[in-house]
Amino acid sequence: MAALGVTGPLPDPEAVGIVGIVGAGTIGASWTAWFLARGCRVLAYDIAPGFFDRLREHVKATWPALQRTGVATIEVDCALKRLAEAGTIEAAVRDADVVQESAPERLDLKRDILAEIDANLSPNRIVASSTSGFGVSQLQSSMRHPQRLVIGHPFNPPHLIPLVEVVGGGLTSEDAIQWALKFYVAIGKKPIRVRKEIPGHLANRLQAALWREAVYLVAEDIASVADVDAAIAFGPGLRWAIMGPHLVAALAGGANGMTHYLDHLGGVVEEWWGDLGTPHLTDQVRTKLIAGAAEEIMGRSMAELTQRRDDLLIGILSLLEQRRF
Amino acid sequence: MAALGVTGPLPDPEAVGIVGIVGAGTIGASWTAWFLARGCRVLAYDIAPGFFDRLREHVKATWPALQRTGVATIEVDCALKRLAEAGTIEAAVRDADVVQESAPERLDLKRDILAEIDANLSPNRIVASSTSGFGVSQLQSSMRHPQRLVIGHPFNPPHLIPLVEVVGGGLTSEDAIQWALKFYVAIGKKPIRVRKEIPGHLANRLQAALWREAVYLVAEDIASVADVDAAIAFGPGLRWAIMGPHLVAALAGGANGMTHYLDHLGGVVEEWWGDLGTPHLTDQVRTKLIAGAAEEIMGRSMAELTQRRDDLLIGILSLLEQRRF
Repeated sequence: MAALGVTGPLPDPEAVGIVGIVGAGTIGASWTAWFLARGCRVLAYDIAPGFFDRLREHVKATWPALQRTGVATIEVDCALKRLAEAGTIEAAVRDADVVQESAPERLDLKRDILAEIDANLSPNRIVASSTSGFGVSQLQSSMRHPQRLVIGHPFNPPHLIPLVEVVGGGLTSEDAIQWALKFYVAIGKKPIRVRKEIPGHLANRLQAALWREAVYLVAEDIASVADVDAAIAFGPGLRWAIMGPHLVAALAGGANGMTHYLDHLGGVVEEWWGDLGTPHLTDQVRTKLIAGAAEEIMGRSMAELTQRRDDLLIGILSLLEQRRF
Repeated sequence: MAALGVTGPLPDPEAVGIVGIVGAGTIGASWTAWFLARGCRVLAYDIAPGFFDRLREHVKATWPALQRTGVATIEVDCALKRLAEAGTIEAAVRDADVVQESAPERLDLKRDILAEIDANLSPNRIVASSTSGFGVSQLQSSMRHPQRLVIGHPFNPPHLIPLVEVVGGGLTSEDAIQWALKFYVAIGKKPIRVRKEIPGHLANRLQAALWREAVYLVAEDIASVADVDAAIAFGPGLRWAIMGPHLVAALAGGANGMTHYLDHLGGVVEEWWGDLGTPHLTDQVRTKLIAGAAEEIMGRSMAELTQRRDDLLIGILSLLEQRRF
């Protein structure tokens, strides 16, 4: 088991001072803003020329949202003093207490970058990859210390959505997973543990499951794109901001909760399961989706809709801050 | 086509004065509270002895929530003066401008009740059934005026959730469907049109699709019940309170919306679709769900959780009142 352990004592996950950011695109930049808001110093590296100016602008742009949700309690100018540009991966990770990697989703590229992080980072430091598309086992094979690699997958937009999915691979140490879970809690995220590697982790799978039926209902002309969307956002979607589908089912069971639900509604639900659709994104279905979305959007720009969504998200997050489910 | 038309001029859907309620259990009682809050008079019938006292208590209990969401603008004592007990179905529907039927989900019972409503209600009045489990065509075969029957299916808890699914059957007049859609808008609900009869209408199917994958993830020991729930409620669930899955996809596509999303992520999503699970509610799965839910609930009562959920729902609904998606 020694080979699976992380070498040497790990830093205190609740007192991380310096975060190394490797890959400072949209995801890496959102992570940077979050870490700065929580009082960490950030050393950031990206291969793209001029990335650092864009990174600073991204942090400034997201700061009001981080303040409104209570994540940031200091001014952005003060926070930006804790952000430094690293000219190399080595410089970004050498002094880091943890590294968050958010390089583009290309397997060869990620492997090379993780190997370089690995070679320059003290072995008793954890590396978290933001990957949505790869499994840890695919990524860690090129590392000399694969035991310290976990996935720490955020959800878009990462400066607003609390969820972080933590996954270990075949070579990942349990200590590394536990450390990552504690670290993300300490910086105010909501980490969950994915116990086995699986395509899409949890949230993207669940989202895909919902969208599959949503696509089916449009493909079969059962309802318009806008009406399917309204069926969620004016119906069960309102509850899913508060609690997940299992607790929804348990509450639907009344005083005897999940047991009652399964006894009395399990059969009906299994019938619905048997009737759910398995559509494919054929040209015909694509055409319906694109036309239906255009009808729903009614000429508004995506930027306007995104801004409105984020405003409402901030409101909901502020409201839910004290929830305990 | 005359046989499919509604006989005679329909009342103004935006000026309904009297609603007949047949079946005053939880759903019928919630409808009653909503109609009263919107200024209608309600004539209510239920076969259960003593139902009227319970109905009045239900209205009183839900009133604070209706006031906080802005649906009710008058005091409950004033509203209750507009609520009258009907001793028979005939008395409940004879003078009604519309009838909302919410009898127990038994086909023979519903058919008998709808036939009796039909026989006593002016032919140019619409009948809406709250059924979740039956199709309109199954219900309307025993009616002399089947063209005026629609499904108007609310979502639990109906005094909070705006969604109403409107479905017509093979014998339903298009005029009846259009009338129902306008009526529900006029009383402050969010009706959507389900163009074909399908088990579960829309929202319950979509909900079942999400729960199926949520059950699979627990059945395969990929994550705990609580972590699957958190994956939704701290992740995509926050967005689904604001917008449905199609608009979420379109926004993920950036400036080029749904087209870009389908071009760049359609393939990945289809791969996830192919990997989604098809669990069954076996004894082993039931045991995991029940144990996992108990762990998540941590000894709190369902009443306490329901109260907390409703408080948060009211907050979210108030926040979203001005949304336009």
